[in-house]
Amino acid sequence: MATWTEQNFGSFKMRFRPYSLTMRHTFTVASYSRNSTPVILLELEYDEIIGYGEASMPPYLGESQESVSRFLSRIDLSAFNSPFQTEEILKYIDSLSPKDTAAKAAVDIALHDIIGKIINQPLYAIWGLNPRKIPSTSFTIGIDKENKIIQKVKEAKDFKILKVKLGLETDRMMVETIRKVTDTPLCADINQGWKDKHEALDMIFWLKEQDVQFIEQPMPKENIDEMAWLTEKSPLPTIADEACQRINDIADLKGVYSGINIKLMKCTGMREAKKMVDVAKALGMKVMLGCMTETSCAISAAAQLAPLADWVDLDGSLLISNDIYEGMKIVNGKCKLSDRPGIGISKI
Amino acid sequence: MATWTEQNFGSFKMRFRPYSLTMRHTFTVASYSRNSTPVILLELEYDEIIGYGEASMPPYLGESQESVSRFLSRIDLSAFNSPFQTEEILKYIDSLSPKDTAAKAAVDIALHDIIGKIINQPLYAIWGLNPRKIPSTSFTIGIDKENKIIQKVKEAKDFKILKVKLGLETDRMMVETIRKVTDTPLCADINQGWKDKHEALDMIFWLKEQDVQFIEQPMPKENIDEMAWLTEKSPLPTIADEACQRINDIADLKGVYSGINIKLMKCTGMREAKKMVDVAKALGMKVMLGCMTETSCAISAAAQLAPLADWVDLDGSLLISNDIYEGMKIVNGKCKLSDRPGIGISKI
Repeated sequence: MATWTEQNFGSFKMRFRPYSLTMRHTFTVASYSRNSTPVILLELEYDEIIGYGEASMPPYLGESQESVSRFLSRIDLSAFNSPFQTEEILKYIDSLSPKDTAAKAAVDIALHDIIGKIINQPLYAIWGLNPRKIPSTSFTIGIDKENKIIQKVKEAKDFKILKVKLGLETDRMMVETIRKVTDTPLCADINQGWKDKHEALDMIFWLKEQDVQFIEQPMPKENIDEMAWLTEKSPLPTIADEACQRINDIADLKGVYSGINIKLMKCTGMREAKKMVDVAKALGMKVMLGCMTETSCAISAAAQLAPLADWVDLDGSLLISNDIYEGMKIVNGKCKLSDRPGIGISKI
Repeated sequence: MATWTEQNFGSFKMRFRPYSLTMRHTFTVASYSRNSTPVILLELEYDEIIGYGEASMPPYLGESQESVSRFLSRIDLSAFNSPFQTEEILKYIDSLSPKDTAAKAAVDIALHDIIGKIINQPLYAIWGLNPRKIPSTSFTIGIDKENKIIQKVKEAKDFKILKVKLGLETDRMMVETIRKVTDTPLCADINQGWKDKHEALDMIFWLKEQDVQFIEQPMPKENIDEMAWLTEKSPLPTIADEACQRINDIADLKGVYSGINIKLMKCTGMREAKKMVDVAKALGMKVMLGCMTETSCAISAAAQLAPLADWVDLDGSLLISNDIYEGMKIVNGKCKLSDRPGIGISKI
């Protein structure tokens, strides 16, 4: 086990270490395949209360264990003496660099965990949300060969919605293969894989016939005019993922997509994610709550917001074989939040 | 003293009574004058914790003690057993009628007060805000005769910004009279009083020379095209007040006004107000936090959000002579929040 890098700031102590998540199956989407995901585990300590945080760095997003460690090493919390100075602490951390969103999320999650533990309430309660009103979460079926797809779909029989990764030549085969085995509703994540708007629209009409519920990031994020055209004509809602990172992205996406996929690792954490939900709803847009491959730490943090989402996609910790926390569980395809304070996790 | 109307719902008890706020000075704006403001005082009780709430009904907004009492009498909280079901409780209350926003705010404020008291934290701390970072609050000078204006401005000498009510023939006299007595920066609230956009623009240029900082609701709220023209040409920020009631109004005001004035009595309370701040900021709009004539109950509730505002106008309890709570105080022209839990008030 890698050793902790420790920092002592007076009121706060912080430590972090790299960890590698092992994928249960090789994970393939339109642009790459992988068998593991690098993360950084973080612990923030205040007044003997430990808050847990995590940064997950799928390789295509530009962060790495090295970049996150470098970013975290630059943080100096000695000017702060209370976790309730949340707005200022997180504004300071955000000001340290333009990106590093996963690194920032690790601190944000740990800070919220501490606050919940001091207050002795889960974050969902502090936010006034009902943990029993959460939409079914989707389980992701990566791009794969036919026999592997069938095996994965059978493993996912408890889920009420499956997310199929499309965007290659194999799209119809993928969906047809799944439909041989199950009638479970689907959603489709294209990861920017479709290049022609007319073909995309044809495909969406076909997918609707296959009981697909919505389409995530069908075209490259730069194709704004084509996306607005596609969203206007599409019989299914379109969701921005790669095109929507942070809160200031949302306003320009109105009319271009039907909704946004909010992920803690993209948007610097729980605080901004909560605001993004409110902004999207005020603009009449749908909200999907997503994740990277993550331990139950970041997943349980995201799940605190799940009662506000139209669609939930929080299967990241199910895709790995070496989780080190327990927290939010998925029971009969639904997120079941722990009633413990903060983000509601404990070490396994 | 009017007797309480009491309702017992099981987990929650609610009681409310009418009260009349006596104005220190006759209050005149572009459209009317008055010497008192009717309010409803509300107490919500849960597990022996009492949360305080208030509805204030300036006559031009369409609510009255009768309408608020009628609305509150229709509420049935027996389906709810915890104040942490905030989202659902307030969604239920909002669903009871299309308007009644002040009545809804009374319940919202009391519910937040209870939550803060259970958690044992002020709302500003729960929201992660720094109570020492609040802009100076403005003090309102109503439309009046010259000698009265001079008297009011002298009384307001501790304030760092004065709000002058304009929108009548007397506009230049008002400002010139104030400028005879003080150099304190001003803001101008027109209350929809200007009817011609060219005259409005000329006036704004003149007001800028008089060190006016921003212009609130210069034209009728229906004049959207004229307002967009005026905002584009105006050398001062324009703020929507009558034009912006609730969160769903904001998106359409982008490009029409520079910012919005959020008031608890317009937007059903603290929960929606907090979301409105986040939405306005995500749209690149300024945030002003305002009030009606209110006791320290509703004022202290609004003040919990003041660290997020660009401009604060929370003088409502200073305009009355018969406050029955103490809470947020104004010291040297700045809001000083109580460090007590909830909205931080106690009965006088």
